[in-house]
Amino acid sequence: MEVDFSNIKVIGFDADDTLWVNETYFRDAEEQFASLLENYETKNKIDQELFRMEMNNLDLYGYGIKGFMLSMIESAMELSNNQVSQATLSQILTLGKNMISHPVELLEGVKEVLDVLARQYRLIVLTKGDLLDQERKLERSGLSEYFHHVEVLSDKKETNYQNLLDHLEIDVKEFLMIGNSLRSDILPILNIGAQAVHVPFHTTWKHEIVSEVDENHQYLTLNGLKQVLDYL
Amino acid sequence: MEVDFSNIKVIGFDADDTLWVNETYFRDAEEQFASLLENYETKNKIDQELFRMEMNNLDLYGYGIKGFMLSMIESAMELSNNQVSQATLSQILTLGKNMISHPVELLEGVKEVLDVLARQYRLIVLTKGDLLDQERKLERSGLSEYFHHVEVLSDKKETNYQNLLDHLEIDVKEFLMIGNSLRSDILPILNIGAQAVHVPFHTTWKHEIVSEVDENHQYLTLNGLKQVLDYL
Repeated sequence: MEVDFSNIKVIGFDADDTLWVNETYFRDAEEQFASLLENYETKNKIDQELFRMEMNNLDLYGYGIKGFMLSMIESAMELSNNQVSQATLSQILTLGKNMISHPVELLEGVKEVLDVLARQYRLIVLTKGDLLDQERKLERSGLSEYFHHVEVLSDKKETNYQNLLDHLEIDVKEFLMIGNSLRSDILPILNIGAQAVHVPFHTTWKHEIVSEVDENHQYLTLNGLKQVLDYL
Repeated sequence: MEVDFSNIKVIGFDADDTLWVNETYFRDAEEQFASLLENYETKNKIDQELFRMEMNNLDLYGYGIKGFMLSMIESAMELSNNQVSQATLSQILTLGKNMISHPVELLEGVKEVLDVLARQYRLIVLTKGDLLDQERKLERSGLSEYFHHVEVLSDKKETNYQNLLDHLEIDVKEFLMIGNSLRSDILPILNIGAQAVHVPFHTTWKHEIVSEVDENHQYLTLNGLKQVLDYL
């Protein structure tokens, strides 16, 4: 695929699973959650029910670990028919607290790529999730210095991106987004007329998977972030 | 007290308990929480323990209803020595969900004041708490049209304010903050050299109460938001 990035002046980076590991911790937590409840249901059923609960609560709680914790508590009571022990509920709370305080693990090549790109482009972070949690991760990541601006969005739909670009006075023609989620980082960006580079992470949350991509959508897919230096 | 607002070009409004009712719902929830646990402890002890739990978890959860829900769950188990029924835990979750979806109740005179001030000043909202929750409240409030910018901060300390004013290219000498919390809306603002108007709400969360105010801090205190029109 041919791409032309010669107009690009500002590059937006997704954070979770683009700059640092995130989804892996959710998958680990789901595994542990299923183990804690293995007396009540099969792993498969537990996974399904937790996901269903998260989707039910998404409008109310939004994205992030605290909403995930509340959904785990609610699921545990439901799946066990209110038989789950309070020791188990406490373990679920601890599981979530450990996720929040987990050290940040940068993905391969991130520092190297930012080091190069920061010299030539204005770099910003565009992430969704919990405000405090994302600010904390950026601070722990040691990457703050590379970014002109960090925006935590409640969602990543066309309007969220358009409003932000307007606010930061960024021309869509000069904006490139790099991220791991087709649904959140790539498609809405292409829909508003900006460009996008897809760097898939090995794990994608079911909610972020899109089943079909319009053929008119043109974007680059790379195997790792470092490859972006071949194009920029 | 003499004040000079002739330089002011931008006015920042706190949202919770300045534009709309908030603390009242937390107090109501605490009342209900204490009733749910009345078999285990006195109301006084329950209030104390819930507050202690919230403070313990504040670094981890930050401000907002989801963190409050998680602290209620954890407190309920602790206060009851893990004897609390799952029906009660479910009621606590429902209590929190109802807080999130509660209709927005504007404080007296808010629309009238914004109507007047929006003609002459650039108005912004500066609030802390949960991003999604605050965005939702602003939307429901019908007040969005009055504001040039809305910023949800993870905290309201000097650095949070200074960074935001820098980012929005607002001169501190031209900035006035209006809010109900001395700790969050007034003192840090005065410390960075901007001006502030204190409009107390009848209820203040224990965490927001400051015991002593430096005599060098000069700010106006009003009985209601409408009085601000006498000065601006």
